[in-house]
Amino acid sequence: MFILSSPSGAGKTTISHMLLAGDPEISLSVSATTRPIRPGEVDGQDYHFVTQAEFDRMVEADELYEWARVFDHCYGTPKAEIRAGLRAGRDFLFDIDWQGTQQLFQKDQQDVVRVFILPPSLEELQRRLIARAQDSSEVIESRMERARAEISHWDGYDYVVVNDDVDACFAKVSQILAAERMKRARQTGLIGFVRELMR
Amino acid sequence: MFILSSPSGAGKTTISHMLLAGDPEISLSVSATTRPIRPGEVDGQDYHFVTQAEFDRMVEADELYEWARVFDHCYGTPKAEIRAGLRAGRDFLFDIDWQGTQQLFQKDQQDVVRVFILPPSLEELQRRLIARAQDSSEVIESRMERARAEISHWDGYDYVVVNDDVDACFAKVSQILAAERMKRARQTGLIGFVRELMR
Repeated sequence: MFILSSPSGAGKTTISHMLLAGDPEISLSVSATTRPIRPGEVDGQDYHFVTQAEFDRMVEADELYEWARVFDHCYGTPKAEIRAGLRAGRDFLFDIDWQGTQQLFQKDQQDVVRVFILPPSLEELQRRLIARAQDSSEVIESRMERARAEISHWDGYDYVVVNDDVDACFAKVSQILAAERMKRARQTGLIGFVRELMR
Repeated sequence: MFILSSPSGAGKTTISHMLLAGDPEISLSVSATTRPIRPGEVDGQDYHFVTQAEFDRMVEADELYEWARVFDHCYGTPKAEIRAGLRAGRDFLFDIDWQGTQQLFQKDQQDVVRVFILPPSLEELQRRLIARAQDSSEVIESRMERARAEISHWDGYDYVVVNDDVDACFAKVSQILAAERMKRARQTGLIGFVRELMR
């Protein structure tokens, strides 16, 4: 379970897309949500669209790794699909914030790798939030506040990568993923291989 | 402190040389030894050549990260030089066996990354040991025994890499080194950088 978090505007979504496009062994975790499906979205691909009652049942039955309410709707990560994928040797990418990361890590510390992406400077972060927003200075300030709150949790991550160049940042995140796959504890076939070597 | 271990014949020395040649930020840890200097060797570069009395004093004063007696001579890793280098942000490569790795890890778990290189197959390991040895079958069998003993400690390492192709193996080991440098806990300048971002 490969978690990417960052304040918005630091490039996490771009890096996620690059990772998913370039690596057939990792897939995006599909969240469950109570929000209505939007035109163009596919149930089971963009989200698992569920009723509030079904979502509550999943929370109650501990079927979610992490969940959060954002405004009027709930979002969460169903365990079953991820667990089956992990057992089959697949990796999953999580594009979640510090709260989701804390919950996920609490539930399964062994299988989680946490990567935090930082913008190269405060000025660049402001510039990106302004470029995106086209909104009032109040809205921008509130986005800056959210970004600061997210950044303040940088110490809850295993790796920190500064995104001053998107290709360099992607290369670094890819190196982290590649290295984590070489961790002894993640190589399930190793014990048989070693037994064969020592025959 | 980046440790590479492997049974002899698995390519560790080649990989070490490639790493040292390609990366100016890592240097080989220079061991202290009681064995006599050989023609062509440079004191302080190949080894720190010391007397047995001096070596004993270093052991007694806990000035070595790890040490071992091999036949008639002692070999060990002086702490002072490594510590000063680490403080200055340098990395050190250790080409040591499982016993040295255990000792080093015991002394400083935080700063140690342990990588184990495995040969691609038993047949290939045998082939390499025979090609090298040009020795009696007894000598070869004793080398195989030492290789098996080394391999049996694969579970004391953070990463395991199979060397079926030296360039691919080098690329993997380099990825591990790069990823480890991105670990939050190893990036000493990060806290100031984050403070600046949240200004």
